[in-house]
Amino acid sequence: MDLMSIKDPSFLKGLSNKELEDLSRDIRRFLIERLASTGGHIGPNLGVVELTIALHKCFDSPKDKLIWDVGHQSYVHKILTGRANQFDTLRQYKGLCGFPKMVESEHDVWETGHSSTSLSAAMGMAIARDLKKESSYVVPIIGDGALTGGMALEALNHIGHEQKNMIVILNDNEMSIAPNVGALHNVLGRLRTAGKYQWVKDELEYLLKKIPAVGGKLASTAERVKDSLKYLFVSGMFFEELGFTYLGPVDGHDFDNLFENLSYAKKIDGPVLLHVLTKKGKGYEPAESDTVGTWHGTGPYKMETGDFVKPVHTPPAWSKLVSETVQKLARKDERIVAITPAMPVGSKLEGFASEFPERMYDVGIAEQHAATVAAGLATQKMKPFLAIYSTFLQRAYDQVVHDICRQNLNVFLGIDRAGLVGADGETHQGVFDIAFLRHIPNLVLMMPKDENEGQHMVYTAVQYDDGPIAMRFPRGNGLGVPMDASLHTIPIGTWEVLKNGDDAAILTFGTTIPMAMEAAAILEKRGISIKVINARFIKPLDEKMLLELFNENMPVLTIEEAVLQGGFGSSVLEFAHENGFHHVEIDRMGIPDQFIEHGSVDELLKEIGMTTEDTVNRLNTLARKKQKRA
Amino acid sequence: MDLMSIKDPSFLKGLSNKELEDLSRDIRRFLIERLASTGGHIGPNLGVVELTIALHKCFDSPKDKLIWDVGHQSYVHKILTGRANQFDTLRQYKGLCGFPKMVESEHDVWETGHSSTSLSAAMGMAIARDLKKESSYVVPIIGDGALTGGMALEALNHIGHEQKNMIVILNDNEMSIAPNVGALHNVLGRLRTAGKYQWVKDELEYLLKKIPAVGGKLASTAERVKDSLKYLFVSGMFFEELGFTYLGPVDGHDFDNLFENLSYAKKIDGPVLLHVLTKKGKGYEPAESDTVGTWHGTGPYKMETGDFVKPVHTPPAWSKLVSETVQKLARKDERIVAITPAMPVGSKLEGFASEFPERMYDVGIAEQHAATVAAGLATQKMKPFLAIYSTFLQRAYDQVVHDICRQNLNVFLGIDRAGLVGADGETHQGVFDIAFLRHIPNLVLMMPKDENEGQHMVYTAVQYDDGPIAMRFPRGNGLGVPMDASLHTIPIGTWEVLKNGDDAAILTFGTTIPMAMEAAAILEKRGISIKVINARFIKPLDEKMLLELFNENMPVLTIEEAVLQGGFGSSVLEFAHENGFHHVEIDRMGIPDQFIEHGSVDELLKEIGMTTEDTVNRLNTLARKKQKRA
Repeated sequence: MDLMSIKDPSFLKGLSNKELEDLSRDIRRFLIERLASTGGHIGPNLGVVELTIALHKCFDSPKDKLIWDVGHQSYVHKILTGRANQFDTLRQYKGLCGFPKMVESEHDVWETGHSSTSLSAAMGMAIARDLKKESSYVVPIIGDGALTGGMALEALNHIGHEQKNMIVILNDNEMSIAPNVGALHNVLGRLRTAGKYQWVKDELEYLLKKIPAVGGKLASTAERVKDSLKYLFVSGMFFEELGFTYLGPVDGHDFDNLFENLSYAKKIDGPVLLHVLTKKGKGYEPAESDTVGTWHGTGPYKMETGDFVKPVHTPPAWSKLVSETVQKLARKDERIVAITPAMPVGSKLEGFASEFPERMYDVGIAEQHAATVAAGLATQKMKPFLAIYSTFLQRAYDQVVHDICRQNLNVFLGIDRAGLVGADGETHQGVFDIAFLRHIPNLVLMMPKDENEGQHMVYTAVQYDDGPIAMRFPRGNGLGVPMDASLHTIPIGTWEVLKNGDDAAILTFGTTIPMAMEAAAILEKRGISIKVINARFIKPLDEKMLLELFNENMPVLTIEEAVLQGGFGSSVLEFAHENGFHHVEIDRMGIPDQFIEHGSVDELLKEIGMTTEDTVNRLNTLARKKQKRA
Repeated sequence: MDLMSIKDPSFLKGLSNKELEDLSRDIRRFLIERLASTGGHIGPNLGVVELTIALHKCFDSPKDKLIWDVGHQSYVHKILTGRANQFDTLRQYKGLCGFPKMVESEHDVWETGHSSTSLSAAMGMAIARDLKKESSYVVPIIGDGALTGGMALEALNHIGHEQKNMIVILNDNEMSIAPNVGALHNVLGRLRTAGKYQWVKDELEYLLKKIPAVGGKLASTAERVKDSLKYLFVSGMFFEELGFTYLGPVDGHDFDNLFENLSYAKKIDGPVLLHVLTKKGKGYEPAESDTVGTWHGTGPYKMETGDFVKPVHTPPAWSKLVSETVQKLARKDERIVAITPAMPVGSKLEGFASEFPERMYDVGIAEQHAATVAAGLATQKMKPFLAIYSTFLQRAYDQVVHDICRQNLNVFLGIDRAGLVGADGETHQGVFDIAFLRHIPNLVLMMPKDENEGQHMVYTAVQYDDGPIAMRFPRGNGLGVPMDASLHTIPIGTWEVLKNGDDAAILTFGTTIPMAMEAAAILEKRGISIKVINARFIKPLDEKMLLELFNENMPVLTIEEAVLQGGFGSSVLEFAHENGFHHVEIDRMGIPDQFIEHGSVDELLKEIGMTTEDTVNRLNTLARKKQKRA
């Protein structure tokens, strides 16, 4: 059918299973074709085509609440709710978001990006529904990977206790972003191979009801028999123990099976967990046969072959550079242990894992646990390397404060995807880390200007043994600079003058250094001389260099690809005022006080006024003021 | 025996059970006597006397790692490791810490304060032990309440999967700080009443081993029989499903029982969970009969009667004021729902709970879930009031960013215990909240100067419907000011001039306002005129008032009982520089870049230079500079 003509999911009610299967095929073809040019989360979406259709047929969205955990699997939902015609703009600037977004549709009742939030959100919605005495279904759809996140487990515990009506769809594809780990994963594995248990329980209940009751005594016997049966039939025990009625496992690509179970689930009082088995990437061979997560989220690809359309220039990716340097150092340093919360592929730790399997721990989606495992290792004089994305480190803020920094432990935080990340948008921008880390005592925070400095910083972090040290680095590739053969440490808290100048100084670090150099070069031609400083230590500051600048009364422009409030520029302001240099002109460039949506990093930087032109203009103003004074 | 003479736990090895029972009695008497004058966590410690003795007898600390979750139950451990003679200084300035502390003893291998970290720390230590090929026991001791924290559940999932040797002691007293909630609590309840399952399993295994094996076939049959038995005997299924060997439940006050199970646990390969039943407050009638958590942690009390020695002045406690105001408003506003992560007593929500049981949710120790339940409620046009301590809000930082503020939802965060908290010390100081909240877009953050303004702020927060709003308030009591009978809203982002003056201005809020007024009064007598401003909105700033000050070139002293780095004072600096007022002198008083240990709030403020005298001196300097210029 013409997917572009879909306005809302109501048309599904009248379709036969045969027609739904045709629709599934059309949606798959649409996704495979469209994502070939835009890229996107192809694997997860191909896996939930029938499930999404079945949910929209069995429930009445938006009255019934479909809550997509993580949300990268909401493309089919977007198609069924009238957004097929926006897929050419997927994940692009001002285009269709890759995650649920309330402004896009009334059917997006909850926004996501980070995993494991859906059950808590559903609980809030269920409480609200019952207080308002409304009648609707609340249906969170959560993957087996997201289920191991601490907040999802907190929610299971609470939902099971409160016994609110809710239908949790467990979308089990046996892998999240990478193959899953954890005992819970084993529990699900056992369930996958077990038989249908609910039906047995039902038949028994039916039989028992036929026997005339004797003062309630039989009922309690029946309960007991039912309970023993639970244990005999094993299935779903884990969830039943937590107070859920467990249904499944169900073939998530079989409409009959899905409809039967969904309509049964709708009749059950209290929370239900419907275990649905799906195949990630289903219907597209390259994605379907992926076992490590390559097809979880991709850039553009050639549809026919499944080859990725790679960018022309390929200097080493940052994640790879960092992980490979750690791996190299691990050969001589037995203290090094790598930890990742479910991102072995994203963090490019495959090499480390295969060389040092016993020193590599993928703990699953469990950022809090990951941080504190690192702290525990550090108490035993090991040197843990915690590879974690900036945006996901937000989940471990308390553990960084309370366990790592308060105990001043030698943990090396490798903060990946720091700064703007582009297409993943506002839930994934790594722009808060400086503001949420720099006020924590004992922590050293740094960012390299290029991959060569990056490898020396990794070395510095591994050698450093005075407490926690963090290195942030951006998404994407390095600059392609020559790499030194041997590594050296960089003295903590020292900056580097990249270019001398007299009229104003730029203090910046990481990805914004090329822009700073370019702006300085432009102004040089206009007779304005700009000093450019690589402020590679965000904390501690290079106080000596700052005092020199301030004593020369040099106007300063700080630039950071991170939030301005409480950021690096603010720390320069703080230092100036603490040391009596309140008269120094300090201008700060960075991300304003708003969430930044998806788009290419260049488009986003332009929107928020962080281009070379902006830099030139602001430096110009600063320098002219100084020249006027002189 | 003379507890003061204990140097280390080695003496326990030679004692008989009778002697251990005598020791237990002595320790209980000691705790009840000493805590009567100092206060402290009496209930939890009376509950673990035998358990702690048994652990130190069965294991060799510090080679074996005893890891106390939360750590407020480590007093007996402190006594047995040679610190009885420091108990007169418990929780006092420069005195014995109320939590494990590495600098105090080599037996304190992990520091705590926040709950649910012990299992992750233990995992780190177990990995380190195995990599170093050392041989030791890793023994985390975790309460049933802490087990519901997301990171503890993440850890269970990972530990069960990795199958490292570890003996988890589940100290089940059926309540944490308040009576526990959650499905897991029900699981434990069923276990408590179930029989001993491990012994049955053992006997079976023994019998099966006697039958000659036939090509491994029998072994797998035996496995299967064993597995069915698991389900038949029910006990511990939840933990067994997660990969633990479950032992128990064990009477935690019976040495025979404890020793038998601990020595059995030491022989088992892989992770073991030993379920120990203890009675909180055991041996002290008032504490033992406590069912709501009054005797969890207390101030001084009269030993004979169990009456609390209350402070002389008793203006309303802040928690009570806030909760009662919310309760009053809830009578007319059906949207209000209160949420607490396991702190119904601490947050004084008992009244709300009894008047609106269906609108009050204690979600257990689960801060992340609590925050996102609130967000879920807000999507349905409810008005959730999340009552949470400042220090515990750290656990929900990502949820505040990603779920509440990014979606701009109308959640009211009541941030209790903001600022220095005193005796609980560095793990509990509520000093980071401004720095970790003010950079989050969409959030309004405020703090009232007294309890009357506090009630109007609560009203303001409830009326506000443009997004998330947070009110921080301190531990302890209000000032005893008269209370207005009717409530009004305070315009968002407006400050209040408390006293006029020309030579310098103080910008401050909350608890430091009386100090500011006092300092201004002292300077007034010396002919220096100080303006005092109640900067009750930390975000957004009162930009109009700031511009007026800056235009007058008024030197400014900001004061905040919170970290200086990235705090309120920094936001004033940022605003000044953004608006071209770089020449204004701004001095910032607050908490320096270090963790602040325990002690009375006054002692701590003195140590960090935040007294009236400090304020007078700094204002004096600022004002004289201005006078000189004029």
